[in-house]
Amino acid sequence: MKVAVMGYGTVGSGVVEVIESHSELIGKRTGGERLEVKHILDLRDFPGDAHEKLFTKDFNDILNDDEVKVVAETMGGVEPAFTFTMKLLQAGKSVVTSNKELVAQKGLELLGEAEKSGANYLFEASVGGGIPIIRPMSQCLAANNIEGVAGILNGTTNFILTRMIEDDMDFADALKLAQDNGYAEKDPTADIEGFDACRKVCILASLAFGKHVYPNQVSTEGITNITLEDVSYLHSANCVIKLLGQIKYISDDKIAAFVSPAVVQHGSQLAYVNGVFNAILVRGDAVGDVCFYGPGAGKLPTASAVVADMVDAAKHINRKKIFGWGAGSEDYVVDYKSTLEMPFYVRAKADENEIKELFGEVQFLSRHDQPSDEVAFITDKMTENALTAKLSGVNTLNTIKVTNY
Amino acid sequence: MKVAVMGYGTVGSGVVEVIESHSELIGKRTGGERLEVKHILDLRDFPGDAHEKLFTKDFNDILNDDEVKVVAETMGGVEPAFTFTMKLLQAGKSVVTSNKELVAQKGLELLGEAEKSGANYLFEASVGGGIPIIRPMSQCLAANNIEGVAGILNGTTNFILTRMIEDDMDFADALKLAQDNGYAEKDPTADIEGFDACRKVCILASLAFGKHVYPNQVSTEGITNITLEDVSYLHSANCVIKLLGQIKYISDDKIAAFVSPAVVQHGSQLAYVNGVFNAILVRGDAVGDVCFYGPGAGKLPTASAVVADMVDAAKHINRKKIFGWGAGSEDYVVDYKSTLEMPFYVRAKADENEIKELFGEVQFLSRHDQPSDEVAFITDKMTENALTAKLSGVNTLNTIKVTNY
Repeated sequence: MKVAVMGYGTVGSGVVEVIESHSELIGKRTGGERLEVKHILDLRDFPGDAHEKLFTKDFNDILNDDEVKVVAETMGGVEPAFTFTMKLLQAGKSVVTSNKELVAQKGLELLGEAEKSGANYLFEASVGGGIPIIRPMSQCLAANNIEGVAGILNGTTNFILTRMIEDDMDFADALKLAQDNGYAEKDPTADIEGFDACRKVCILASLAFGKHVYPNQVSTEGITNITLEDVSYLHSANCVIKLLGQIKYISDDKIAAFVSPAVVQHGSQLAYVNGVFNAILVRGDAVGDVCFYGPGAGKLPTASAVVADMVDAAKHINRKKIFGWGAGSEDYVVDYKSTLEMPFYVRAKADENEIKELFGEVQFLSRHDQPSDEVAFITDKMTENALTAKLSGVNTLNTIKVTNY
Repeated sequence: MKVAVMGYGTVGSGVVEVIESHSELIGKRTGGERLEVKHILDLRDFPGDAHEKLFTKDFNDILNDDEVKVVAETMGGVEPAFTFTMKLLQAGKSVVTSNKELVAQKGLELLGEAEKSGANYLFEASVGGGIPIIRPMSQCLAANNIEGVAGILNGTTNFILTRMIEDDMDFADALKLAQDNGYAEKDPTADIEGFDACRKVCILASLAFGKHVYPNQVSTEGITNITLEDVSYLHSANCVIKLLGQIKYISDDKIAAFVSPAVVQHGSQLAYVNGVFNAILVRGDAVGDVCFYGPGAGKLPTASAVVADMVDAAKHINRKKIFGWGAGSEDYVVDYKSTLEMPFYVRAKADENEIKELFGEVQFLSRHDQPSDEVAFITDKMTENALTAKLSGVNTLNTIKVTNY
């Protein structure tokens, strides 16, 4: 079967490599049909590349090629990926993608178009890189009411936090090390501010609860406020800080969804996910907690997920997979700050008596070289708004949500 | 859609419960078709059970009912489950199962019959209870050459080992606690001798590498030789002991597959799987390591996996899933003891000089209250046969494989 790849960056070139190096295996998995890359779309030139003859700068070469039934979109960004994907689906070609931004922003329209045309739009690689999560989650969903999902969805920030926790390295140094190792981009904003994790939360939430969630509905906080002091206090309580995307079922018409640093207790599977790895924990009413762990990014891991989707699409030509979600609404995602109750970690310039007056008997934490005017503690469960109100007169240095995963 | 359940024990009654309590959800997932239990086959009586009218002791009531398209087999054991399943598949009915013994012994014939008749034979619940593993592994497989699989596949033994490691409880007490908690049966042989894990290894190996592996081909060692002394020595080296099922690719015609206690280093995802939980780690050439974690047994977790398969079967009536494996052969599974090289943990009545003469410079371990005539150490990589030869003159107390997962 002839296929095309749009975008010859890290993931796209990995897709071509995996298709070629796993040709026999893919044949076995499709029931005999090998995949053959016929076109590679990219505006850049790649002189000397072994696939030189396959390159095109004209999208119509793919759109108008009746032989091409499955296309991998690994361009990233909303445009022109959206326009291209839409046209391909309208033409009845299946599209698979690693483009989380596009799925988070335009998944509803694209899945709707796929529904109409009978083509498939698959996006396993858009969340968790090489980790199979989209299908396993659909599978868990078949016989479970999902109560919540929590994920370490961004390898860059998890690498930085791991270095802070394990090596006592401060944020700036850990970020620099991530950049030196190629784990963080020159402009690391999308990672460290949580925007990348936010897009993945949108996809997971849409899938888990059947209604589209957009990035602007998901309250998003990055890791730039995390300090070694926080790491140290929480270490004393057998806890670590992770950047988590969290989704919680409230009712059939309401969910909570947010990205933020979170305190995770040792014993939780999420506490042991280190370096650039990702993990997604799904809590179902029948199954309990299941957790999927693996490389959340990287050329070949992500490419292998894209190619697995291409194989699946190739097996399902003219057969629609029941897969997708409906429209959401503006008030579908609640303001979790006034709704969800949870404990919080608080670090403040204060004395213990002042805190006890406000919070009652709380668990105080300690650290090496703790200044006499600094306290850190874990509150009882309360909403974030209630916390903010209580802390209004306190010189607060940091607050972090404590998760129950 | 009408369905039937064969075997109304823990899992079977859970299946009926999940189908009833998740009726609306299941309807959504099948695209409108709810599942309705029409028959429950069991030789026992369940007076007062809410489903009294559905019970039958005659298998033919299910076989000859044209309305019934999907059957859950939760009887366990090879017979009569095998005969019943075969007849159902021959009649074109899809069968889903949690029966690992049957899939391990007779999977090849049953999958072959399903292939012929166009029905589906699905067995997600046979490995890892509620953890989605069969489909995610197929998915990983689509674009990865699998290099190896390692799994904590038995919750009972993992519970016992966890109590030994965390609470310094000896094997006998931990086993008794497992029995008191309902995690171990009165006759715990199948669990503690590794037979249960062995069956799951057969299924995973057959799926991963496409050829049937039978239980008698898998060298199997349980946990009854593990002592608190071993736990303690390994703790000093930041390691834990787990009962692992391991499968390794050697060539397209050869694999290794065995069940045994294994030393796992902290940092491995398998080291943090505690209590009755299971985890399966899959190592692919493109994706690297991915790991699936969750409850490996239990009524509702396992039932939710069975029901998810029923939903999938219901969606695929008259549509064959490409899924299964071919015949193996007697020499397909190698004698790993002469083939695979790995480090070993050894505990012996000996002195360090004697060991150094035999093994060179090795890593000696220590423990609290270590007798002066006892040593424990980790060897270099070697085959198990080479180890046995080297230890022929040594008063060896225990040896345990060290895994590289």
